[in-house]
Formats: sequence, structure tokens, C-alpha cells
Amino acid sequence: MTPFTYDALPGRVVFGPGVASTRLLAEVDAFGAQRILLIAGESETALARELCAPFADRVTATFSGIRPHVPLEVAESAREAAAGADLVLCVGGGSTTGTAKAVALTTGLPIVAVPTTYAGSEVTPVWGLTQGSRKTTGTDPVVLPRTVVYDPDLTLTLPAALSVASGLNAMAHCVEAFWAPRRNPVSSAVAEDGIRHLAAGLPVIATDPKDGEARADLLLGAYLAGSAFAVAGSGLHHKICHVLGGAFDLPHAETHAIVLPYVLAFNAPNAPRAAARIAAALGRDDAVQGLHELGRELKVPAGLRDLGLGRSDVDAVLDDILALAPTDNPSPVTANGLKALLVAAWSGTAPTGEDA
Amino acid sequence: MTPFTYDALPGRVVFGPGVASTRLLAEVDAFGAQRILLIAGESETALARELCAPFADRVTATFSGIRPHVPLEVAESAREAAAGADLVLCVGGGSTTGTAKAVALTTGLPIVAVPTTYAGSEVTPVWGLTQGSRKTTGTDPVVLPRTVVYDPDLTLTLPAALSVASGLNAMAHCVEAFWAPRRNPVSSAVAEDGIRHLAAGLPVIATDPKDGEARADLLLGAYLAGSAFAVAGSGLHHKICHVLGGAFDLPHAETHAIVLPYVLAFNAPNAPRAAARIAAALGRDDAVQGLHELGRELKVPAGLRDLGLGRSDVDAVLDDILALAPTDNPSPVTANGLKALLVAAWSGTAPTGEDA
Repeated sequence: MTPFTYDALPGRVVFGPGVASTRLLAEVDAFGAQRILLIAGESETALARELCAPFADRVTATFSGIRPHVPLEVAESAREAAAGADLVLCVGGGSTTGTAKAVALTTGLPIVAVPTTYAGSEVTPVWGLTQGSRKTTGTDPVVLPRTVVYDPDLTLTLPAALSVASGLNAMAHCVEAFWAPRRNPVSSAVAEDGIRHLAAGLPVIATDPKDGEARADLLLGAYLAGSAFAVAGSGLHHKICHVLGGAFDLPHAETHAIVLPYVLAFNAPNAPRAAARIAAALGRDDAVQGLHELGRELKVPAGLRDLGLGRSDVDAVLDDILALAPTDNPSPVTANGLKALLVAAWSGTAPTGEDA
Repeated sequence: MTPFTYDALPGRVVFGPGVASTRLLAEVDAFGAQRILLIAGESETALARELCAPFADRVTATFSGIRPHVPLEVAESAREAAAGADLVLCVGGGSTTGTAKAVALTTGLPIVAVPTTYAGSEVTPVWGLTQGSRKTTGTDPVVLPRTVVYDPDLTLTLPAALSVASGLNAMAHCVEAFWAPRRNPVSSAVAEDGIRHLAAGLPVIATDPKDGEARADLLLGAYLAGSAFAVAGSGLHHKICHVLGGAFDLPHAETHAIVLPYVLAFNAPNAPRAAARIAAALGRDDAVQGLHELGRELKVPAGLRDLGLGRSDVDAVLDDILALAPTDNPSPVTANGLKALLVAAWSGTAPTGEDA
């Protein structure tokens, strides 16, 4: 058994269909909040106002100028809107939660989050701000939402393609949790259950986005993925996708979905217990094939070349990825091993662990 | 999917063979502690002093008057010893941790716990005090140890019989977590992994108490069981054992070990998913038979009559248990169903779910 250190994060989660309508008042009351800053993007303002109806008189300020990656000027405007507030309530996806975090970072205000996507960031203490093209991220317990209200009914209108892409990102976090730097028995158990729910929900949502039970599975899976990532961090797979995405502006979700089975194939020979748990959670005999087949079922492109990446592009980023590769990855990351992994992911041939 | 509310508990866990010697200084330093109250029973004083050697000058007070169930006068003496302290460090089993909690309850001092048994109470916010024969318990986040240092090497000398009994108590908490009142996906995932480690470690420790890997499995299982209980609470099984134990002074661990498969058999028909997860974690085809066989393997008596309980004793406590039975138990608890369960557990016949 590997020794471990585990810093458990506090937080309250209320999960269930309809809870955003039936339980939000009590959750806001638990803070004794009297002057609430509501943060919600333009497209979510109507929903947010409806959810806040039972305590509308206590919503003393609203902020709706959400923009992706939380530009510093957006954060500053939101912080101004927070003057005099005693609670931040955010309703929306990752950028909305990110804006609430930017407010908490400088004001220390508690956050109640009502996610409407599968971002998962509502259960992490990670914040991010951008200035021009430069992104700064950090970790601070003060930005971790104190209460998260997960209502799968709010996700019923998320488009199928976006839901699948977002769900596969969550899947990548769950799989990587098994060899991420701060992995521990709790984050692994949570990740395993996350895979189970994502694997159950994804194929259904791809064809029937209004299926309530599958929506609950996806949202629960996204929550568990966020929790596992918050505690364990991420590893080789996310380094590869980060470098590829940054260098060639590849679509985030497809890149993750294509690359993940190849990283799993690379690591599985040296992480047999993780592979067995991932397979069991996927409900398949083999983790690598199971993940690959799930991608096929969800119409994920076979290889990175299907995203327009050239064969020589792979060689161009090899050294950058190698420099970032975690030293405690289950399979040691050599130049040859990494190249074989990337070429296989580029061509879309069936992933195997032979080159690890 | 069942809606849920989950209040995640914070806390830091450092786990591994030898960590009490190699990591305790850093964990104490993290609090900036300068005046430490060391709480350790007489039998653990030598060990505790050895572990504190790297910061002996900062141990400004010690308390060793540990007694079971934390009598109020013990708590008061320990609180007096805490005057001027900035940290409580406890080394020992459940009663030692309980004494540290009694100090934290009135002083608010942070606790660093170094458990030497499988009590699990070091990860719960539950405190208990006794005055004469009257026990008072409560829940307060202030008594939850802030850091727990789990070193399986410290458990190598625990007698096999005590280890098995204690490990089976932990098993009962894991199994009950699946239908306990505050159950949620995280507590279930943690409980499932707890069962896995307890089932791996128990048979080995029964015959080879010095097996380091099995000791790590048991201690990890005990930690996970404590975590699951802290979050989810307990259910029908613990009510039955509590009433039986109180009325007839039965041995705690044996009672739990005998009764558990029968409660599982009672609930399994209405909790098939839980039963399947318990079976998988036990590494057996069937959860009820698996648990029953594990008990046999560990030389647990077959039935409550082997503990000296009379057949009429079962009838005598039926109403008391019925009054305490949780209303949301997977199988509704009727007088007839409960009687059949208890009679089967009394006689030691193979547990089946037929009477549920």
C-alpha cells in the first residue's frame, strides 16, 4: 500500500431534481444572508431570478457581465458590485462560478453555487483570472463555495453535444485521479464512482438529452470528478492536452476524449489495480477498450488527425510535453514511449499498452 | 437516483508505515505549536514520548489518566492540564482520543491524533462523556481532530483477537453506511473501499498479527469506516446491537459480528445495489453469504445463543428495538420481520433475506 496524505475539503452539497427551487431559500438562510450579490450570465438571469423569488428582497445586487476565463476587469466590476454584500450566490457554468471565486478571493465572502453545467469547478479551491492572453491561477480555500446546490433539472436544456463533451472532460478527471500527484484512497473511491455515473449517463444523453435520470447521473458524475480533481490534482493526460490545446488551438473536449484511452493504455501495465477499478466502473472487461468504445459510441473522432492536426505537429510538441511529464507517472515517460502514445492517438489506431 | 445532502468534513490525514516517527514533527509545526498537551494512557506513555522526542521541549504538559468512556472527572482533569496549551496531541485508542475531544470541546484547542487502534473516532466530530452510569454524547465540529497521523506500525502489537473484533466493528459501520440516515454517494464510495480493505486484512491478521501489509489494510479500513460513519451515521444494525448490548451486557464486537449478516439479509432484497457493491468489495458472489463466511473464517460464534443469550431474551427486547428502528430502513421494520431476523441471529442459522 502506498503511503498518502489527504487534505479533505469541507463543503455542503444538496443534490436532487428540483432542489434549486425547493431548497435554495433554506441554504441561503443558513448563512443568515441579508444582502446577496447574485452572479449569473445574461442567458441565465431569468432562471436565476426565478430561483431567487422566495428571497428576492434580499438580492441587493446583481452582476451579469460574465466572460470566459474571468478577465481581470470583469473580476474588478464584480468585486465593486459586491460592496456591502454578505453572500455571493452564483447561478451558471464554470465562468460564472469563476467570477464568484474572483469576488471571494479579495472579499472573503462565502459562496453558494448553483451549477447549470458539468464544469465541476464549484467544488475546487482553484481560481483563475486572465489579463490579456495571460492566465493566472491559484488555490485558496476562501474561494471554495461553502454550499453547492445541484439540480439536474437545470441541465435538461444543455445541448447533447456540449453535454457529452463536458461529461468526457469529467471522465478524464476521474481516470487521471488514479495516478494524480495527491491521489489517496478517498479520491480514488470518489473517482471510481464518478466513472460509474458518467458511463451510465453519457450514452443516454447523447441520444435523449431530456432523460432526467441520465441528467442526474451526469451531474453527479461531474460533481464527483470535480471533487476527485480538487483533492488529487491531474497528471500526464492533462499535461498532454494542455500542451496540444495551447499549441494548436484544438477543441478542448474532443482532444481530451481522443487522448484519454491512449494515456490509460500507456499507464495500465504499471497501474493494473487502477485499470481494473476503471474497467469495473465502466462496466466493461477492459478499461482501455472500454473507454475507447465509449468514445466511439459517443461519436468522438478516432484520432487527433481528425481534428486537423498534422503528423509533424506531434513531433513539434514532444519535448514540451516531456518537460512537463510527471516524474511519478505509473509508466516512466520516455521520449520513445511518449512519441508512440502520441502517434497512436494521432492516427486513431486502437490503443494498446504495448509501448509503455 | 435518491436526492442527498452531504456535509463534507475537513481534516488532514497522513498515512503510512513509519509516519508517526518521520512526519509528526512537521504536522505539529504546521500549527506553530509551542506548548503541547500530550494525552496518552499509561501503557502508551513510552511510545508517545519516543514519538515526541523531536519536539520534546515543546511538550509542556502530559495527561495519562485515561479511563473508558471518558468519565467527567477525567475530562475535567485533562482540561486543567490543558491550561496554557496551544495544541492537544493524543496517542492511543478510542478513550484517549475521546479525552482529547473532551478537552477540545471546552477549550477549542486543535487536536493532532495518532491512533494506535481501529476505533475510527479520530475522524468523527462525535464526543462522549459519562457521569456515573449515564453517558452523554454530542456532535461538535470543534472536537474533530485537525490532523490524524495513521501509522500501521503502531498497531503491530495489537492482539489478534482484539484486532479482529475491532476490524469487524469497522466492517459494521461500512455496511450500515449504505442505508444510514445521512448516506450519500461519497460516504457509500468510502464505505465500499473500507469493506475492501477490511476484508483483505482481517483473515491475515487473525493468523499473522505481524503482517505489515494486512495491518495497513486494517488501519486504512478503520479510517474509511470512521469517515463513512462520521458523514452517514448508522442504522438498524447499530440500534439492534445497542439494545442487545445494553440489556444483556453482551460482548460488543461479537454481537456486531454475529448480527450484521442477518441485518444485511433483511435489507438486501430492498437494497440490491448496496448488496452488489458490498459483495464486490468483499470479493464474494453474495454479500450476505460472504459476510457470514468471513465471520466463520474469523471464528465468530454462529449465533447470539453462543454468547449465552436465551431465546426469551430476544422477545424481551423486541419492542425496544422496534421503537428505535429507522423509518427509512430499506426493508420496512415490522414486528414479525424483526422477530424473524433476531431469532435467526440467535440460533445462528444461515442468514437469508426471505423474511424481509
